[in-house]
Amino acid sequence: MSTSEDQPLTNLPTPPACVADFCLIPLGMGASVSKEVAEVQRLLKKSGLNYSMHSAGTTVEGSWDDVMKVIGQCHSMLHERGVVRIQSDIRVGSRTDKKQGFRDKVEKVEMLLKEGEN
Amino acid sequence: MSTSEDQPLTNLPTPPACVADFCLIPLGMGASVSKEVAEVQRLLKKSGLNYSMHSAGTTVEGSWDDVMKVIGQCHSMLHERGVVRIQSDIRVGSRTDKKQGFRDKVEKVEMLLKEGEN
Amino acid sequence: MSTSEDQPLTNLPTPPACVADFCLIPLGMGASVSKEVAEVQRLLKKSGLNYSMHSAGTTVEGSWDDVMKVIGQCHSMLHERGVVRIQSDIRVGSRTDKKQGFRDKVEKVEMLLKEGEN
Amino acid sequence: MSTSEDQPLTNLPTPPACVADFCLIPLGMGASVSKEVAEVQRLLKKSGLNYSMHSAGTTVEGSWDDVMKVIGQCHSMLHERGVVRIQSDIRVGSRTDKKQGFRDKVEKVEMLLKEGEN
Repeated sequence: MSTSEDQPLTNLPTPPACVADFCLIPLGMGASVSKEVAEVQRLLKKSGLNYSMHSAGTTVEGSWDDVMKVIGQCHSMLHERGVVRIQSDIRVGSRTDKKQGFRDKVEKVEMLLKEGEN
Repeated sequence: MSTSEDQPLTNLPTPPACVADFCLIPLGMGASVSKEVAEVQRLLKKSGLNYSMHSAGTTVEGSWDDVMKVIGQCHSMLHERGVVRIQSDIRVGSRTDKKQGFRDKVEKVEMLLKEGEN
Repeated sequence: MSTSEDQPLTNLPTPPACVADFCLIPLGMGASVSKEVAEVQRLLKKSGLNYSMHSAGTTVEGSWDDVMKVIGQCHSMLHERGVVRIQSDIRVGSRTDKKQGFRDKVEKVEMLLKEGEN
Repeated sequence: MSTSEDQPLTNLPTPPACVADFCLIPLGMGASVSKEVAEVQRLLKKSGLNYSMHSAGTTVEGSWDDVMKVIGQCHSMLHERGVVRIQSDIRVGSRTDKKQGFRDKVEKVEMLLKEGEN
C-alpha cells in the first residue's frame, strides 16, 4: 500500500467522489431564512451537480473539490447579498469500496424495510 | 420577561417543540450500515412521532424530550444488537415565533423558487 | 442477546453515558453571539455536569437524558431571553466497550503523536 | 451591491477566510479511532494551517479552499491506508464583518463570564 511517506502530503489528492449534506444558517438576519435557502437552490441548479433539498438541508454529490467549491460559493453569494455571517453544518462521506449515489442509499434501506414486513 | 434568575436553572423546562435531523453512524462494524438504518426506521415508526428518512439522515419532530429520547433509544437498541460504539450528528432547531412542521419548510422554499421563475 | 422483540420499544432505556459536543446558533439576532454563549456556559456550570468549552462548541458528558436535558434547557433559557429561533448541531457518541471521559481521548492521541516522534 | 446576476455563478469565488471544525469517523474499522485521529493531526501540522485539536474534533482556519482541501486530504490519506469509508461532520463559518481567529472567540466568552462574576 502506498503511504504518505512516498509523497509530500500537500500534494495528496482529495477524494474523486463524495456525498455531502449541508445546512446553511445565515446569522444577523431575521429568523426566517427561506429566501436564502431558495438562493442556494438556484446556485446549485446552475452548478450542474446532482443535488436534492430536504427539510433539514441539501444533499449534493460530485468530486470533493466540486462539492466543497459550490458550498463555498453559496457562502460567498449570500455574503454578497449582505449576510455578514454564515454558519454551515456539512456531513460529508467518501468511500472506496463502491460507487453509491445518494438516492441508492434510501432505496436500499426501503428494500430492507419491505423485506422485514414479509 | 421571566428570566432564569426567577427559578433554579435545573428546573428550566426543555422546548415543547423541536425539529431534529440525525445521522447515526455505527463504528466497529463493516462499512455498510443500511441494516442498522432500517432498524432505526422501525423504531421511529413505533414511536408514533412524525418522521421522514432521506439519504443523509432522518428528520423527526415532537417535544424536545420525546425527540431526544427516541434518538437515545436508537443508540440503545443498536448497542443491544452488538454495536459497541455509535456516533450521531444531530441538527436540532426550536423556535417561538411560529409552529412550523418540517414539511412546511420545503414547501415554502419551493414556492419561492417557482415565484422566481415567473 | 436480548432484542427489541422482547420488550416494547417505547420502554427501551437511553444510554447510561454519552459525550456530546454542541454548537448553538441563535437566529434573528446580530452576528455576534458571545453573550448567548456565555449564558450557556453559566447554565452548564450550574448543571453539575462535566463540560468544556472550545472555539467551535462545548463538550459535555453524562447520562443521555441529563446531557440532552441541559442542551434543551439552553434553548429554553435563550428563548426566555428573547431569541426566537435557535439551531444547534450536536455530535453525540455512546459506547459499551469502555468508559472514556472526553479528556482521555485527547490524551490518547497526544500520546500516539509523541510516540511517532521518537 | 453587486449580485450574482452580474457574473456567472460558477465563477463566484469561495470565501477568503473561514473557520472549520471537523470530526472524522472511519467506518468499517474497530471501535477505536485514535490512531487515525493521530494521522490526521500529523497531516494538519504539515499543512501549515493554524489548527487545534479538542476531544470532539479539530478546528482549522484559513481560506475556504485551503481548509476544505486539507480535510479532503485527510480522507484520501486514510483511504490510502485502507479505510474504506469515512464520514466527517464539518461546522464551518465565514463572516465579512470582522476578522476573528478561532482562539479570539473563546477569549471573548471568557471575558464576558469574568465580568458577570463581579
